[in-house]
Amino acid sequence: DLHSSPTRRSSDLKKGGKRMRPVLLLMAYELFDENVDKAVNPAIAIELFHNFTLLHDDIMDEAPLRRNSPTVHYKWNNNVAILSGDAMMVKAYQYIVRCDTDKLPHVLDVFSKAALKVCEGQQLDMDYETLAEISIADYLDMIKLKTAALLAASLRIGACLGGAEESDAVLLYEFGENIGLAFQFQDDLLDIYGDRKKFGKQEGGDILSDKKTFLLLKAFEMAKGEALMELRNTVNGKYDDPAKKISTVKGIYDKLGVKQAAKDEMSKYHKRGLDCLSKLNVEDKKKEELRSLAEGLMVRES
Amino acid sequence: DLHSSPTRRSSDLKKGGKRMRPVLLLMAYELFDENVDKAVNPAIAIELFHNFTLLHDDIMDEAPLRRNSPTVHYKWNNNVAILSGDAMMVKAYQYIVRCDTDKLPHVLDVFSKAALKVCEGQQLDMDYETLAEISIADYLDMIKLKTAALLAASLRIGACLGGAEESDAVLLYEFGENIGLAFQFQDDLLDIYGDRKKFGKQEGGDILSDKKTFLLLKAFEMAKGEALMELRNTVNGKYDDPAKKISTVKGIYDKLGVKQAAKDEMSKYHKRGLDCLSKLNVEDKKKEELRSLAEGLMVRES
Repeated sequence: DLHSSPTRRSSDLKKGGKRMRPVLLLMAYELFDENVDKAVNPAIAIELFHNFTLLHDDIMDEAPLRRNSPTVHYKWNNNVAILSGDAMMVKAYQYIVRCDTDKLPHVLDVFSKAALKVCEGQQLDMDYETLAEISIADYLDMIKLKTAALLAASLRIGACLGGAEESDAVLLYEFGENIGLAFQFQDDLLDIYGDRKKFGKQEGGDILSDKKTFLLLKAFEMAKGEALMELRNTVNGKYDDPAKKISTVKGIYDKLGVKQAAKDEMSKYHKRGLDCLSKLNVEDKKKEELRSLAEGLMVRES
Repeated sequence: DLHSSPTRRSSDLKKGGKRMRPVLLLMAYELFDENVDKAVNPAIAIELFHNFTLLHDDIMDEAPLRRNSPTVHYKWNNNVAILSGDAMMVKAYQYIVRCDTDKLPHVLDVFSKAALKVCEGQQLDMDYETLAEISIADYLDMIKLKTAALLAASLRIGACLGGAEESDAVLLYEFGENIGLAFQFQDDLLDIYGDRKKFGKQEGGDILSDKKTFLLLKAFEMAKGEALMELRNTVNGKYDDPAKKISTVKGIYDKLGVKQAAKDEMSKYHKRGLDCLSKLNVEDKKKEELRSLAEGLMVRES
């Protein structure tokens, strides 16, 4: 059952990840049409595209681990990872094309625009690594591009294929954008408070790479005096023991209440997403699955 | 005048390269329809796609120079080059979509199939670097994928957009494939016998990187006794002086007559291409421009 997969552990799906984007696409389609077969190939396209971005992102981030397995560039080499990613993007386009011809131009338009946003977001993410001053607003803009845009586009494409009115397709896009932001907050939280085995990535990886997540930016915003000095000394500072760096930063987060601040922020976007969903011109009980999926994203462990 | 650009020096077009693929697409279109405006966006798409492949290839080949300028990865860094390439591929799809909706599925099919071939060809090219035994047939298979497929697809897409019969579109594809092979032979020749300023790449780059071009494979096929030993010692051997390595290999090529062998091979594919062109169900005088462009590719200097 595809619909339950977002809260499953990735290992259940043969390291396939949560397959959240195709699930969202299919769910959005089902709001407007029962014959979900017509949306399967575009759903595959979105998942392929997402996996292509992971392949290339993992090169850029020098990530050794993804879904509890060695990344492609780590197991093979950068060239293989670049080229496999390129081919996967082409494959994604081969799958998205398999839909009603009259809807094809619009679907491709939504898809390509989201694809560009993902690239732009990744570039900003990298730029932020070396920029000293990043605001939380900057961070949100980046996440909107890098993460939320493709989730939002998945929903919009599903709606479009299902025959939704443009206004409903746009509401689903906005639902997806807000849920996408909430999703990223949970992702940032899992990096440090999650179970490594379930999450499938290096524990505290964001802390070790001094990644400017919401948690870190919020900590800098909230910290004063001694805590601020300790934070400054730890972040971007040299360290011999990775575990010590993680526990130090975690300790500062605990003192400041950064975890709760992130959870509050996550709730805010979650609620905004639900508002969009409630405005949708669709029977209320049909929205239940999307509502519970959005809920699931906030309590997920992977 | 777009049509004369393939034989111009690249510097005339603001480092834009020869723009051979869009020119081929437009020329193929014009065989069947006069309103060439309708083919301009897909022509831009092909050029964008080609430039995306150059961006990524230059990372993989660690090439410092392209069109007499530093490559993107060299001037910025690998991550910027990976991501710019990704975004350019998406842009290519955004441009190819701008054509008649009824032709879109077929055009996208031809385009994506060629795109995958280009990726596959690049992977083979890299694989060949570390494989000891590569035959000339292997080399031709690789070139068909890496270089000829996109040239051929450009022509086929142009024909399709212009309203050609499928049989004519296929003949133009085959014309392009053969011309593409001839083009690669000329490219291999230019690497060593060309004028660096006009060619815009590192002189003798193929020799220095022990690239298994037709020239080198043919030399290994023809060489016997002392020449074979000298070739074996030079290729893959250590060297202190790049210029000396180039002149040694060049000397062996001269003794064996490899240059003439490559020119003969080039002529063979050129003729095959012209055969396809002659079978085309189109007024003969309309074919003149494609015929002279094919001619130009064999005498080009860049």
